Amino acid sequence: MTRPATPILDRITAPSCLKALSDVDLSRLADELRAEVIADVSETGGHLGSSLGVVELTVALHAIFDTPRDKLIWDVGHQCYPHKVLTGRRDRMSTLRQEGGISGFTKRSESEYDPFGAAHSSTSISAALGFTVARDMGQPTGDAIAVIGDGSISAGMAYEALNNAGAEGRRMFVILNDNEMSIAPPVGAMSKYLSGLYASPLGNLHSMAEGFEAALPGPVRDRARRARQLVTGAMGTGGTLFEELGFQYIGPTNGHDMPQLLAVLRATRTRATGPVLIHCCTVKGKGYAPAENAADKYHGVGSFDVQSGAQAKKRANAPSYTKVFGDALTRLAEVDASIVGITAAMPSGTGMDIFGKRFPKRMFDVGIAEQHGVTFAAGLAAGGLRPFCAIYSTFLQRGYDQIVHDVALQNLPVRFAIDRAGLVGADGATHAGAFDVGYLSALPNMTVMAAADECELVHMVATAAAHDSGPIAFRYPRGAGEGVPMPEIGTALEIGRGRVVREGSDVALLSFGAHLGECYKAADLMEAHGASVTIADARFAKPLDHDLIRQLARNHRALITVEQGAQGGFGAMVLHYLAGEGLLDGHLAVRTMTLPDRFIDQAAPDAMYADAGLTATDIAATAMQAARIGLSAREGLRG
Amino acid sequence: MTRPATPILDRITAPSCLKALSDVDLSRLADELRAEVIADVSETGGHLGSSLGVVELTVALHAIFDTPRDKLIWDVGHQCYPHKVLTGRRDRMSTLRQEGGISGFTKRSESEYDPFGAAHSSTSISAALGFTVARDMGQPTGDAIAVIGDGSISAGMAYEALNNAGAEGRRMFVILNDNEMSIAPPVGAMSKYLSGLYASPLGNLHSMAEGFEAALPGPVRDRARRARQLVTGAMGTGGTLFEELGFQYIGPTNGHDMPQLLAVLRATRTRATGPVLIHCCTVKGKGYAPAENAADKYHGVGSFDVQSGAQAKKRANAPSYTKVFGDALTRLAEVDASIVGITAAMPSGTGMDIFGKRFPKRMFDVGIAEQHGVTFAAGLAAGGLRPFCAIYSTFLQRGYDQIVHDVALQNLPVRFAIDRAGLVGADGATHAGAFDVGYLSALPNMTVMAAADECELVHMVATAAAHDSGPIAFRYPRGAGEGVPMPEIGTALEIGRGRVVREGSDVALLSFGAHLGECYKAADLMEAHGASVTIADARFAKPLDHDLIRQLARNHRALITVEQGAQGGFGAMVLHYLAGEGLLDGHLAVRTMTLPDRFIDQAAPDAMYADAGLTATDIAATAMQAARIGLSAREGLRG
Repeated sequence: MTRPATPILDRITAPSCLKALSDVDLSRLADELRAEVIADVSETGGHLGSSLGVVELTVALHAIFDTPRDKLIWDVGHQCYPHKVLTGRRDRMSTLRQEGGISGFTKRSESEYDPFGAAHSSTSISAALGFTVARDMGQPTGDAIAVIGDGSISAGMAYEALNNAGAEGRRMFVILNDNEMSIAPPVGAMSKYLSGLYASPLGNLHSMAEGFEAALPGPVRDRARRARQLVTGAMGTGGTLFEELGFQYIGPTNGHDMPQLLAVLRATRTRATGPVLIHCCTVKGKGYAPAENAADKYHGVGSFDVQSGAQAKKRANAPSYTKVFGDALTRLAEVDASIVGITAAMPSGTGMDIFGKRFPKRMFDVGIAEQHGVTFAAGLAAGGLRPFCAIYSTFLQRGYDQIVHDVALQNLPVRFAIDRAGLVGADGATHAGAFDVGYLSALPNMTVMAAADECELVHMVATAAAHDSGPIAFRYPRGAGEGVPMPEIGTALEIGRGRVVREGSDVALLSFGAHLGECYKAADLMEAHGASVTIADARFAKPLDHDLIRQLARNHRALITVEQGAQGGFGAMVLHYLAGEGLLDGHLAVRTMTLPDRFIDQAAPDAMYADAGLTATDIAATAMQAARIGLSAREGLRG
Repeated sequence: MTRPATPILDRITAPSCLKALSDVDLSRLADELRAEVIADVSETGGHLGSSLGVVELTVALHAIFDTPRDKLIWDVGHQCYPHKVLTGRRDRMSTLRQEGGISGFTKRSESEYDPFGAAHSSTSISAALGFTVARDMGQPTGDAIAVIGDGSISAGMAYEALNNAGAEGRRMFVILNDNEMSIAPPVGAMSKYLSGLYASPLGNLHSMAEGFEAALPGPVRDRARRARQLVTGAMGTGGTLFEELGFQYIGPTNGHDMPQLLAVLRATRTRATGPVLIHCCTVKGKGYAPAENAADKYHGVGSFDVQSGAQAKKRANAPSYTKVFGDALTRLAEVDASIVGITAAMPSGTGMDIFGKRFPKRMFDVGIAEQHGVTFAAGLAAGGLRPFCAIYSTFLQRGYDQIVHDVALQNLPVRFAIDRAGLVGADGATHAGAFDVGYLSALPNMTVMAAADECELVHMVATAAAHDSGPIAFRYPRGAGEGVPMPEIGTALEIGRGRVVREGSDVALLSFGAHLGECYKAADLMEAHGASVTIADARFAKPLDHDLIRQLARNHRALITVEQGAQGGFGAMVLHYLAGEGLLDGHLAVRTMTLPDRFIDQAAPDAMYADAGLTATDIAATAMQAARIGLSAREGLRG
């Protein structure tokens, strides 16, 4: 396809070049940048809508502030594509989210213009306050600017940070990027009004905005007020929530009106003495009709055709684990009225939307609020219901204390459906589900399962539903299942009982979770070299199947555990058990195959597991070495 | 000492008895209850001030609501002593916080009147919403009432819960127990005003309060307004923060004025259709002068003399780890201006007050906000400072995702000072620091240390200060040190290097942290039975001292790891390493001694470790069995 013409952008080698541009040229630059990002993402896929919403803001911030000395911190970071284009990564945009390429988020190791990386939400204000204090203590750093969306700022962590930053009273900037509502008519009018204000004292901006609102005709005034109420909630003339927390509030401003943005940022930068919040209204997907019209579908996209907006469909031979979970839960809920679902702002990501569509009154989206979500689930369980709390492995870390203190300690039967377990592909290290097996298996009363395939997942949903005696968690990977035959309805598994899926005599592979397929391949490789291999699917990391493990330990020369998780998880639980039973005292060779002790960069999941040393070949080689099966055979495997 | 006379209380066998009492008798009951609690706690010690602040509230809530069908949830739970006296545990108050006795917090397993236990803060609204939804879905449960303090409600988790509960719009009750300020004069006046209101429509209470305020003389009116602004922050006539979040706001009410409390609760209970917040002003330590006058010193007390208020002093032969940390950090900060300290509302509990007293501008108390605190520390580190983030092991669970995502993934040198590691005594299972070694050691880039004694702690503070290449954590127990000689200034340890403290040949004890003393005792026991014992102090769970472990494995028949933490921690890391190196393939016997897979109830720490199977005798017996040293010797140990 033809690339858009970008004469101004072509002259920008660093953000400092923006200082020399006129305001008119900055507007043109924004237009070029938008076309560039659309063209880039049409080839790579990625978070298009968020990035298109902040094109003008990105240009204006780099034009007015002095990056990288000033610290520009994008919350979540998925709206950073225009920022990456402007900050020296333009020629690498074609590698976005790919192996060896640039991240889909901000990342410290990638650029000095990314002072604080992100991917999880609501961290930016805390980080900005850190830089601000460092500046005030004499470190060579300028102003800190956090750009945070209206969803992210509603999380408890952001509230904690606003509360603290407001009390500290230090000069810092929070840009609220508010794309919840389109406020076209009043913003159009306000735009003109505010454009005339930039020579005015900053302190008057807010009160002038109020005066402006009052002077508007009825319906338009009401919409302008609603824009302010989006953040204040208040109908009266009292201060905004942000003012209550100690911030100076400026806004709302039109985030796509470059002259207005430049005026507000210039005035604010010049005059601010304490913490300032600039409320900036934007449109997700701005400037690209297919993305504006279907903001949800264009939040994260695959590659697409720019003219038509048609997204390339991925072919999958099997349903996704996410859909399998949603369907299985919904089927169980048809016959069990006590089942309720909780999601923390990820209904479609977790498959909870399937359940919610069928049972809207039994599905609770608590927002970006994992802490509350977990304890709310504990309350539901204490109240007699059967809550399924569906949270990605990496985000469940946000509710860890609540799992310990409110769920495990009280032994309440909350069901944790843990999607995105293991390595996840293009979202990279920040989204990897590496630690859940360890941090959950350490907890008394907790039952921890992992699904070997999507059929097993169906059974585990049924197992969790039937398990009323305490908390239970089941993990499963991102993406499509194995394509195995599916049961009509799940059957509850016996708690703490694994299964032998292939019988052998030399080596035992004990798999936990979705690497079972890789264990089959490893066993085939080894058997081709003369080894006799047992394969077992542990199903449970806790409680362990003691009979199974004892039998594997006694009847094989080597026992290899395999999991899609970090050290301290399933393998560690097996080792603790073997040590405690004295089963390590003899000649059994044991190896634990886990994720390595480093973060694994983005790539296709298979490539990430290869990077992690967890391919079938790795497993076979480790097992053969442990079992002391001929060196030549091992070299054959490696070759 | 003589017990107070309690004629009305003596007739109360259950909260339902309160229904038969007149309002005047309920006031008298509150007076008796207060005297009873003072007398109880003077003998046992405990959280006196918080409990005295809610005596009237406790009586009023049980009188108006229908517990245990209605679910009364005390946030944190340390204010529950009057509640325990009224709910069937009066005769066990002498066992408070002691081995085999009742908990100092609410606890589900203790009483049906404790529907949701607590000890960590800010969980009550989430739990109450859970019960509320369960009721609305047909479960046999009544109204849910969360009682939460002004400190706890400021945490992000409580904000998340208010936000969600307000949006849900269901009938539920939040009592804001606000003891930050004493508002004697206006409350006195308002009391009379409100007393006349209880026949009025509920919806008018708030507006009447406003009218009432407006009618007050200037200074009194200002104080009344300040009381409201405590929660609203707003100076204007706009809604309160709670109204913005969807709650009906009622208050402020005088939490020590029984007629007013009863009136407000009766009216609210009768008429509420959605979520209601009742703002209740109380005085910490109310009714006991020594506690009122020194609310901080009476937050948690030892036993004391009721007449004089004098608290029994504990004798300690050694300084507390907490003080050693605070002093060591302060000394280092004298010569390193980049050191800053962060605490999450626990300045004195963590020893950060020592540092803050010397360097007030370098100490940051972020409030009950561990999520923000950790990422704020990451921002400080990214900004070039050396942050020490001092958080108890159990509360650090609240910031786990931030440790993973903002600190470890970005490899930022945040120093985590982890107090209350291991079992903590009277605060019981909810405060145990059991999981930190596991959940931290699983993280790439993280360095994890544990101090064997207070001298080691001084060196570890120095080690952390000197470690600029990534995050580092050091853990140490609650209470007094070992009484070892102390260095003037700490010396940075070599990262990943342990030490052999006794050389032997049969058995190696590899200790991580403050159980080293117990290992010495175990070794003495074993040597009395003819075994030759090596003792090593690992110092680091991550990175492990590979040379040391290899040497111990090769030169001993048995290797025993000992730690004050759960499975999946230090012992698991050692096992992973041994397995990976093939050091388990021969005849080495390995055992990991950890906390068992159950929560350990309150007792003296030594008794808790005995319960956990971690005494010197347990260690010696395990080691002798592993090393296959004579059965008779082992029986001698057990006897």
